[in-house]
Amino acid sequence: MPEITGYNFIGGQRSAIGSRTVKSVDARTGKDLPFAFHQATLEEIDSAALAAAAAYPVYRSLSAARRAEFLDAIADQLDALGDDFVAQVCQETALPTARILGERGRTSGQMRLFAKLLRRGDFYGARIDRALPDRQPLPRPDLRQYRIGLGPVAVFGASNFPLAFSTAGGDTAAALAAGCPVVFKAHSGHMATAEHVANAVIQAAEQTGMPAGVFNMIYGSGVGEALVKHASIQAVGFTGSLMGGRALCDMAAARDQPIPVFAEMSSINPVILLTHALKVRAASIANELCASVIQGCGQFCTSPGLVLGIRSSEFSAFKLRLAAVLADQPAQTMLNAGTLRSYEQGLARLHAHPGINHLAGNSQQGTEAQPQLFAADVQLLLEQDEILQEEVFGPTTIVVEVESEAQLTAALNSLHGQLTATLIGENEDFEHFGELTTLLEHKVGRILFNGYPTGVEVCDAMVHGGPYPATSDARGTSVGTLAIDRFMRPVCLQNYPESLLPDALKDANPLNIMRLVDGVSTRDKI
Amino acid sequence: MPEITGYNFIGGQRSAIGSRTVKSVDARTGKDLPFAFHQATLEEIDSAALAAAAAYPVYRSLSAARRAEFLDAIADQLDALGDDFVAQVCQETALPTARILGERGRTSGQMRLFAKLLRRGDFYGARIDRALPDRQPLPRPDLRQYRIGLGPVAVFGASNFPLAFSTAGGDTAAALAAGCPVVFKAHSGHMATAEHVANAVIQAAEQTGMPAGVFNMIYGSGVGEALVKHASIQAVGFTGSLMGGRALCDMAAARDQPIPVFAEMSSINPVILLTHALKVRAASIANELCASVIQGCGQFCTSPGLVLGIRSSEFSAFKLRLAAVLADQPAQTMLNAGTLRSYEQGLARLHAHPGINHLAGNSQQGTEAQPQLFAADVQLLLEQDEILQEEVFGPTTIVVEVESEAQLTAALNSLHGQLTATLIGENEDFEHFGELTTLLEHKVGRILFNGYPTGVEVCDAMVHGGPYPATSDARGTSVGTLAIDRFMRPVCLQNYPESLLPDALKDANPLNIMRLVDGVSTRDKI
Repeated sequence: MPEITGYNFIGGQRSAIGSRTVKSVDARTGKDLPFAFHQATLEEIDSAALAAAAAYPVYRSLSAARRAEFLDAIADQLDALGDDFVAQVCQETALPTARILGERGRTSGQMRLFAKLLRRGDFYGARIDRALPDRQPLPRPDLRQYRIGLGPVAVFGASNFPLAFSTAGGDTAAALAAGCPVVFKAHSGHMATAEHVANAVIQAAEQTGMPAGVFNMIYGSGVGEALVKHASIQAVGFTGSLMGGRALCDMAAARDQPIPVFAEMSSINPVILLTHALKVRAASIANELCASVIQGCGQFCTSPGLVLGIRSSEFSAFKLRLAAVLADQPAQTMLNAGTLRSYEQGLARLHAHPGINHLAGNSQQGTEAQPQLFAADVQLLLEQDEILQEEVFGPTTIVVEVESEAQLTAALNSLHGQLTATLIGENEDFEHFGELTTLLEHKVGRILFNGYPTGVEVCDAMVHGGPYPATSDARGTSVGTLAIDRFMRPVCLQNYPESLLPDALKDANPLNIMRLVDGVSTRDKI
Repeated sequence: MPEITGYNFIGGQRSAIGSRTVKSVDARTGKDLPFAFHQATLEEIDSAALAAAAAYPVYRSLSAARRAEFLDAIADQLDALGDDFVAQVCQETALPTARILGERGRTSGQMRLFAKLLRRGDFYGARIDRALPDRQPLPRPDLRQYRIGLGPVAVFGASNFPLAFSTAGGDTAAALAAGCPVVFKAHSGHMATAEHVANAVIQAAEQTGMPAGVFNMIYGSGVGEALVKHASIQAVGFTGSLMGGRALCDMAAARDQPIPVFAEMSSINPVILLTHALKVRAASIANELCASVIQGCGQFCTSPGLVLGIRSSEFSAFKLRLAAVLADQPAQTMLNAGTLRSYEQGLARLHAHPGINHLAGNSQQGTEAQPQLFAADVQLLLEQDEILQEEVFGPTTIVVEVESEAQLTAALNSLHGQLTATLIGENEDFEHFGELTTLLEHKVGRILFNGYPTGVEVCDAMVHGGPYPATSDARGTSVGTLAIDRFMRPVCLQNYPESLLPDALKDANPLNIMRLVDGVSTRDKI
């Protein structure tokens, strides 16, 4: 691996104009690591955005096949990041080696999936309405539509996925696939990781002859504001807190030219335990749910933070069982001191609330996060008390007992937007509770039956999105191939000479892609 | 036709709680018409939004075929609006009968096109990734994605298309097709027209058994703010001024839950005259361009407001010819007194600017709009002077002579976002100026070769959109079937029992729609 310089990545060069540096930290010891990262100056932020803007016309005009080569090359470079890299990521994040190995594979796999999408060609959204010269009262001109990248995209990575939602993560993959150069703001929680990944991306860009400026990365705190406000930036991808995401949305909306922001922010991911399932397999549900709650120290966007069930002896037994298994779980180191502090504060708020009881978990102290279980009065949900709407990021969950099916419906209706909702049930339950799914569709981006929300498959059908505050725009997703839609816009070409049409719209369909021609989906030539 | 009561349309009922009324006006005489429209009170705005919210779960759960029946019934009702209706529209808007007859057909045709889209089923965006139970290291669950309507949509119609961009216009059609109930804010310029059309929509809703509240309409000035801020409203469609559209965007972004706004606002629609075309057919271009400039009294979003050409004797001759034909055109009555006042102010600004010369047109006075031609110094474009970036709504255009191809490129680069750009040329031109199309793609939603931008075909491939300030979100369109995308969001269903899957995602593909199954577009069953 190249040595870490801590210089910003701007237009294919490295830059360290400013004198202010920031340090990365060993997540377990809290000690500074021996790297200094140069906080980007305003001049460097400007240069990075301008480098992306300069790369845009060249990059977006490359064939999709060429962009696919670039993404595949990034994937290969990511896979080639070896044991020393993995050790570095673990040091900065306290995440275990196996997890980082898995996440590396997920991240390179994600790049390859977007490369496949580019070759498949449906992302073009190609539509052709042929001329009708004899139509009365007026002829119809030849009209053809395809989609192009919006322009340079600013991406803010997440602390909790140092690879898959970070430098070369889902937002970057989607933007690069769309034909949009990227300016990435390195997360302060894993800057050494970010530098290694950025080097991998740059190497892939050079190997495949991409324009300088196709990928840029800046370091520092507070640099995001200038980036989002930069006139060259045309869209923003963000994964993080509600406060941070909303601030970016507000900035973007207040620009002279407002730009779209897709911010994935806050979700408590309700899990609903249905009657028959509890009768048949309460103990295994408790075990599985506990595993989901503590997985990755609860540091997942889709961690189940709320468990609902209808009052019954089975639900009572389930709660006891869940309390017992959760009490047995070890404490874990969180991503960084800030995350632990937030977790402690979140727990303190729950402990202090008169409508919430603590059911299990060792007293929270020291440098690690203790798994916790709470029970909340359903009235808190029905009255939309903020305490149950806010995510407590970490290995904790809250059970809520409802009196009846009607109250369950009312409680779910009171929830804000979510990334996921989960129904655990048997066939008898589904016949009975089918209408819940209609209600849940209004609330969430993904509904699971008999699974656990942690674990977000990267594929065509995934939606990692949902109504506010889960995300800032329910029409998008930050995982899966549909994520590319956030960064593309349609253009209509009227009466174009064949020679000037893009390949996606030429009569002969040289890309052999599916197109909507006169209202019919087809690969046929015209 | 039913008598005009001036009552608001709320949840299938008529309501006139408030005492304040507003009058509609004869566009030619400026005299009040004998109707009083009851300005919606805050309580009525709330009721309208809540009626839409109550209708949403029912309406969006209807099959697409049922929603298509509703749209077709609206189309039939629109077609049945007879001569007295047409006369009423003409009275309120001063638009000629033939135009309104055409617009009625366009509006019903638009409804039928969305009905066809609903039956075609690609709007679902159905995607299926089947379970891979044996995948290593982890199995893949069954994941299926389709799209649902966002929820109640607030629609603000345009003054200049009393039918096609108004009560039952494109935004309403797209929202209703998406499964979103509508609260329509009647435009003050044609409230009697709006009432007749709303009656038609309500009648269609009753005929086809739609839930009460699927369509609501409110009257009054200043009622839009409370509507956009209402918690039940989930998206906004708007056609109108930059100031009005931006104000709605800002309100929507500042809500507790921000919502998407698609506002189609301001465009000057540059027309670029290439060298060979001017050599071959300068006179006919002048005639055609003049016709486009004065069409509908220049009251089109896509009216050509800027004409660019490279300095040459042919371009000079063209300008003289355009001046001559434009000077011969009659004055026309505008939509209303406010529109005429804005036109007068716009002309006054052009006359007062030292970099702009008046080339043709009778002195603007009286109650009608006089067609005008101006010439502007190219420096105004290069320096991004606001005078050339602002639309002057009415029958006027501005010619700009550039020195060279390089300056043409620079001038086009200096333009803000536009709905359209037009290239007039011969084959020799296109070989030479092909790169211009790449540049223009960054600037506009639709590029035309050898056509004129007025006339927006309603079809699958149309884009009536473009970068800011043409619209508030370049990813959308307000004309054509892609308009539905603005009001839909994806939902992912994981491991669903077959019995609970929506038809679009069932194994057997009962709707026989195209779906992306394991990365392959197909109508096949699973």
